[in-house]
Amino acid sequence: MEKIILTPLKIISHPLGDLYHILKSHEESFIKFGEAYFSTIEKGAIKGWKKHLKMTLNLVVPQGKVRFVIVDENTKQFNEVILSLENYQRLTVSPGLWVAFQGLEKNNLILNIADLAHDPAEVIRAELDHFPYSW
Amino acid sequence: MEKIILTPLKIISHPLGDLYHILKSHEESFIKFGEAYFSTIEKGAIKGWKKHLKMTLNLVVPQGKVRFVIVDENTKQFNEVILSLENYQRLTVSPGLWVAFQGLEKNNLILNIADLAHDPAEVIRAELDHFPYSW
Repeated sequence: MEKIILTPLKIISHPLGDLYHILKSHEESFIKFGEAYFSTIEKGAIKGWKKHLKMTLNLVVPQGKVRFVIVDENTKQFNEVILSLENYQRLTVSPGLWVAFQGLEKNNLILNIADLAHDPAEVIRAELDHFPYSW
Repeated sequence: MEKIILTPLKIISHPLGDLYHILKSHEESFIKFGEAYFSTIEKGAIKGWKKHLKMTLNLVVPQGKVRFVIVDENTKQFNEVILSLENYQRLTVSPGLWVAFQGLEKNNLILNIADLAHDPAEVIRAELDHFPYSW
């Protein structure tokens, strides 16, 4: 599996309210279910850096707009992805990568469907200036 | 397992944006992961009735406010639950019950984490006036 996968997701229009695909168990970026949780992020605020040693993240943004930056410390490669309902995709991030994210609108909501339940022992944190990124 | 379970969920405050629990794999209302998807529902609109023959629903409302009505056709019992971030709970609905829901605010978002992927063969629909409920 690639370390970062971006999967376009189907939006099904309905006169009473649309339906948005997220993840099905037969998809390649599904490993197993450990935990689902929502995060919010204030406009302009940046959460990060965080590296998961074991957890694979499956991220979607159903409200607002969020900039995710992912760093591979081995290749020093930076990846930037901006997700929203206008760019409705699932961002899968393998363990071992550094992730930070920034809220770009007034209300920003992120869903993570992870293969492990939260465990502080598998999370490493670094200050925002640890990587040279121009937010 | 009860046919309808309402589980209060933790909200963890954070200065940059709060975190909202949804579901962990070790919880009693988790069976297995089949599919996750979002639904939206317009203000005042009602989707339903729908009965799943096999799927167990795990519903949370991270945006807006939604009235869910669940009917057991054997006992003729109606259950009404209104979910929002102000009443942040997970509503677990076992298969065999009739469900309809109504949007109560401008933007209403529902997350369903189901134990099966969508399969039209396990869904039965009925018109809104099939059950006598005063919306």
